[in-house]
Amino acid sequence: MRTAILELLKHNEGHYISGEELSHTLNVSRTAVWKHIRALKQDGYEIEAHPRLGYALRQNTDRLLPDEIKAHLTSRMLGQEIHYFPEVDSTNNEAKKLAANGCPEGTIVVAESQATGRGRLARGWFSPFGKGIWFSVVLRPPFGPMDAAKCTLMAAVGVNRAINRVTGVGCGIKWPNDILWNGRKVVGILTEMSAEMDAINYVVIGMGINANMKEFPSEIAATATSLALATGQTVSRVILLAEILAELENVYTLVQQAGFESVFAAWRQESITLGRQVRVQGFQRNFSGLAVDIDADGALLIKTAQGVERVLAGDVSIRYDNQ
Amino acid sequence: MRTAILELLKHNEGHYISGEELSHTLNVSRTAVWKHIRALKQDGYEIEAHPRLGYALRQNTDRLLPDEIKAHLTSRMLGQEIHYFPEVDSTNNEAKKLAANGCPEGTIVVAESQATGRGRLARGWFSPFGKGIWFSVVLRPPFGPMDAAKCTLMAAVGVNRAINRVTGVGCGIKWPNDILWNGRKVVGILTEMSAEMDAINYVVIGMGINANMKEFPSEIAATATSLALATGQTVSRVILLAEILAELENVYTLVQQAGFESVFAAWRQESITLGRQVRVQGFQRNFSGLAVDIDADGALLIKTAQGVERVLAGDVSIRYDNQ
Repeated sequence: MRTAILELLKHNEGHYISGEELSHTLNVSRTAVWKHIRALKQDGYEIEAHPRLGYALRQNTDRLLPDEIKAHLTSRMLGQEIHYFPEVDSTNNEAKKLAANGCPEGTIVVAESQATGRGRLARGWFSPFGKGIWFSVVLRPPFGPMDAAKCTLMAAVGVNRAINRVTGVGCGIKWPNDILWNGRKVVGILTEMSAEMDAINYVVIGMGINANMKEFPSEIAATATSLALATGQTVSRVILLAEILAELENVYTLVQQAGFESVFAAWRQESITLGRQVRVQGFQRNFSGLAVDIDADGALLIKTAQGVERVLAGDVSIRYDNQ
Repeated sequence: MRTAILELLKHNEGHYISGEELSHTLNVSRTAVWKHIRALKQDGYEIEAHPRLGYALRQNTDRLLPDEIKAHLTSRMLGQEIHYFPEVDSTNNEAKKLAANGCPEGTIVVAESQATGRGRLARGWFSPFGKGIWFSVVLRPPFGPMDAAKCTLMAAVGVNRAINRVTGVGCGIKWPNDILWNGRKVVGILTEMSAEMDAINYVVIGMGINANMKEFPSEIAATATSLALATGQTVSRVILLAEILAELENVYTLVQQAGFESVFAAWRQESITLGRQVRVQGFQRNFSGLAVDIDADGALLIKTAQGVERVLAGDVSIRYDNQ
């Protein structure tokens, strides 16, 4: 019913429809109409109510509501099932619960804010209300757990492509899967999985996309930025999310048809790590060298005076010599 | 209170203690004593009740009760927290729930029977009441998910060593982690994990140990056996489980101190796969060859006419040419 009222309002965007007409057309009471209008307002739709003329939609919501996302969706699997939360502890946690309970592949969890948004290795992720795209997607890939690290490179390619297409900014991928603009982080990706040794049960890819924030907490002010700061414009989160889902689905389909190498080629092109001097801070030793390539496992290959070192996600943090 | 009554009965094993004495010593009512005795009987303790003489423990329980396990425990971490179930859907499922809720490393889940015991790749596992050791242990290893497949080889070494020590039968390891006696399966291991790309959250190693079954369903009658059939004797499940936990802890500690290669040496020695002609049935192709070694990832190396093929868990099932 709420969706039906919204559709009528959208169809007449900017023009009034009387409560009587809504009530008559949809065969509900005037009180019910009024309650739904109130709920739509709470969902961020700007609806003007005029005592005589009725209701008019002045501005669409800026929330990442399932109906709004679905209106822009071009992907066939990703985003067919959407779980929306104004606030959640972490979209990855919700998605893991759904996945463990058997939700279909492609299910997404979207939140306006995360109370305990998480980055890699239990680091926090700043997730203020309505300012970013905080979402997670459930995949059930036919890979083994040894392939899971490559999923994270695949995800980086998908989101980077979608961002550059929608916003026109020139973002790049910092190994393994941060998306940077002008040396500052725009997107973080946290991939988690449940697996047997033989097969993946599910993978949850969580993304924190700094869309429209204008400022950041002091701890990350020097290293983070947003697409709004990069473009000077507010970014439509709904359009960007739909595009990200489409591009993720593209790379995921390509990997299943042609293997990871097909997507690694794009990763190399969009990488801002390859060809750069990096310093590796590992568990046991530190070293510097030239990042020359990634190998078939998605490991970063670094040319040092002693030869080529192979660096796997988790082993190290990488710093750029010119940062 | 129940434990205290049991201790007094055990201390006087075979001799009667009057209800009055129990009641007086432990400062509880005669009715309470009687209720605890009844509960102990339900737990499988054979307690004789004489109207005049009182109670005597005739036979210890054959259940895998936490107190019984702890009485034999020599491991310092594994088995310090024990969750016991007469029946459970699957010990791995219970252990995964506990692990996700933050249980300490080394926590074990033990069941007398599993309603939906699982083997690898969602195959079932025959888990009749009281006949086997159906348990799972939670580890939180400091490895990456790429190392998780090696955990399963490590687990095989631990359990194989414990079985051979306790029972004296000569079991061996079929790659990657089945324990066989005389060509038939005695133990299956199902390792599952929750991980980020960078770090393992937890690993659950589940084992199904065919201890005292005398017969099997027809589907597995030709390929399964039990330790009781192998030795001609009933095996003490409590003693064997305590030994398995001790040996698992040994190999786990060794791996953390000296790396997986230190345990792979034992795996090679106890393997019944290496040096054998095997047929590999893969997703896309089948081939035969001589199993010559495992590599640093735990992959099986198979020498064929075309060269050495590398086989990872999950890619294949292996059949022996003489079976």
